[in-house]
Amino acid sequence: MKTYNFSAGPAMLPEDVMKIAQAEFCNFKDSGSGLVELSHRGKQFTEVIDRAVANVKELMKVSDDYSVMFIQGGASMQFAMLAMNLLGDKVADYADTGVWSNKAYKEAANLGKARIVCSSKEDKYAYIPDFAKWEATPADAAYLHITSNNTVAGTQYRTFPKVDKNVPLIADMSSDIMSREVNVDDFGMIYAGAQKNLGPSGMAVVIMRNDLLERTPANLPTMLKYSTYSENNSLYNTPPTFAIYLLALVTDWIKAQGGIAAIEKINDAKAAKLYDFLDSSAYYSTPVQKDSRSRMNVVWRLPSEELDAQFVKEATAAGLTQLKGHRIVGGCRASIYNAMPMAGVDALIDFMKDFEKRNG
Amino acid sequence: MKTYNFSAGPAMLPEDVMKIAQAEFCNFKDSGSGLVELSHRGKQFTEVIDRAVANVKELMKVSDDYSVMFIQGGASMQFAMLAMNLLGDKVADYADTGVWSNKAYKEAANLGKARIVCSSKEDKYAYIPDFAKWEATPADAAYLHITSNNTVAGTQYRTFPKVDKNVPLIADMSSDIMSREVNVDDFGMIYAGAQKNLGPSGMAVVIMRNDLLERTPANLPTMLKYSTYSENNSLYNTPPTFAIYLLALVTDWIKAQGGIAAIEKINDAKAAKLYDFLDSSAYYSTPVQKDSRSRMNVVWRLPSEELDAQFVKEATAAGLTQLKGHRIVGGCRASIYNAMPMAGVDALIDFMKDFEKRNG
Repeated sequence: MKTYNFSAGPAMLPEDVMKIAQAEFCNFKDSGSGLVELSHRGKQFTEVIDRAVANVKELMKVSDDYSVMFIQGGASMQFAMLAMNLLGDKVADYADTGVWSNKAYKEAANLGKARIVCSSKEDKYAYIPDFAKWEATPADAAYLHITSNNTVAGTQYRTFPKVDKNVPLIADMSSDIMSREVNVDDFGMIYAGAQKNLGPSGMAVVIMRNDLLERTPANLPTMLKYSTYSENNSLYNTPPTFAIYLLALVTDWIKAQGGIAAIEKINDAKAAKLYDFLDSSAYYSTPVQKDSRSRMNVVWRLPSEELDAQFVKEATAAGLTQLKGHRIVGGCRASIYNAMPMAGVDALIDFMKDFEKRNG
Repeated sequence: MKTYNFSAGPAMLPEDVMKIAQAEFCNFKDSGSGLVELSHRGKQFTEVIDRAVANVKELMKVSDDYSVMFIQGGASMQFAMLAMNLLGDKVADYADTGVWSNKAYKEAANLGKARIVCSSKEDKYAYIPDFAKWEATPADAAYLHITSNNTVAGTQYRTFPKVDKNVPLIADMSSDIMSREVNVDDFGMIYAGAQKNLGPSGMAVVIMRNDLLERTPANLPTMLKYSTYSENNSLYNTPPTFAIYLLALVTDWIKAQGGIAAIEKINDAKAAKLYDFLDSSAYYSTPVQKDSRSRMNVVWRLPSEELDAQFVKEATAAGLTQLKGHRIVGGCRASIYNAMPMAGVDALIDFMKDFEKRNG
């Protein structure tokens, strides 16, 4: 049976990528060994990591003013690491738009001075607060932190806030990196757990403006300093080689699709089709405000929790898997990252229509 | 051509493990998705991580007084993390037996009070110093840290030092974990990067006595506290799912071989054969003292650096790969971890004989 996997992450990877990785799993490029078995200092892996970095730079148009790094620990480690490196004695501002942005804030508040400048928490994070209503970030702030897409509530920034030129804008783009064009020069730092749009779990991609590397306190542990990664091409110690390899394959695939602009068009069309269906339905409902809807994670509810559960169960049996909402909020969620083809969205909508007919 | 991969890490994995991982790469247990594409909260991955933990406990006879954790960042992250969690205001003692033990010491010294109690550095780390000559570790020390096997110099502890019962013995077993039986109860903490005997790079296994979890300062970042991992079965955030999966397969394989005692016998025989050959040769020489020889990493030199390089090049062409010594010390090195079959050692010795005949 053909299945479509709507997991929020670890998420489906492009079918072509999975096939290549499987085909060469035991014998990478005639080396006689799998990529997972090869030294990170050898010429085979060196080509892989260099290609991964070059692909990220090319696809996102990253200038030489920035470093691209691969760091273990996921975005959760970045919540602490960015504050350890960049906060100092200053105040860091955080936009509270979801569970993950709130966790990022708490890690900074634990380490120093952090402040929430806007929040949609009381409305169950159903929207991105209007920038005009945010508390202003002063020119001497350490940084302003946002979460560009919120996987749990299903919201996404359409534009990004403007800050004083002395204040780096930092974005956790874990769940929408490379899904749409962004101007990297508008950010001091972009980071993303790889397991949604870039590869498997176990790695974050960090893109940091080089002048910020100098803020790091000298006495931080080696593995918690960004400079350790930037100065060693992420090879100070053994990196997660298989994750970097899959990222290289995924970014090869994005290039073959025509780059991020082309991918963005498809993502827009996929999301529009699903939201149009939800808007046309009296049976399914989404709590997310129209202007804040995520094109990556689409959330909805059925008329009761029992029907939510029945829907997920029957959808799974029909080959539409991992549609259960995040354990914090319940309901249903379809994560339609770059790798999800339009055919998956069509199959989902067909199933939703059929389920409503049988149970509505 | 049949190849044997002697990489020091990431290192070869058992052939059976590689074949299983390849076969189910795109469709794990009929889920329609690869393991890398599945949620870490789903029932498929839950079974995998539970099995991985259970296998580690069973194989190493870990009692319920200990927690088994999977943490990103490799052993290098553990160098800092263990000091952040366990050092406090006390002094930590370090045995300096190689490049990695020295790095571990430096991370602790950066964070607090650390002391070197013995060192073979001036002799290029060619032996493990006699315990009788170590400075005594006082009963109020934070811990005593050792590196059970030293991959660069090719040395290994045969027995472990005794410490006061109030002092936890902490061992970096990155390069010999599960290669031989150890009594876990003798240690406060054992940690190991996975990429030598347990799986791919991108993860460390940490086995910690539960009372030590209480030493952690309350204000440490969440991802740097051991309790975050022990209290959440390593699932506080998205873990490196593919690495945990491969570890589950590798430990399944060790069990199928008869467990660690059976593996140890084979490892002893493999190493004995290679050292016997080196001892019988006037052409190849190993700088390592007999009583400190590693059964995991066997190092040797040829009569000149030019011949070292020629040897590595010709061996690679003959299917014996990754034999170059660590970039710090040069020469040659064969890493013969659990996954290396006796046939690989035999093929290496045959090649060494032939190379000597042609060039000696």
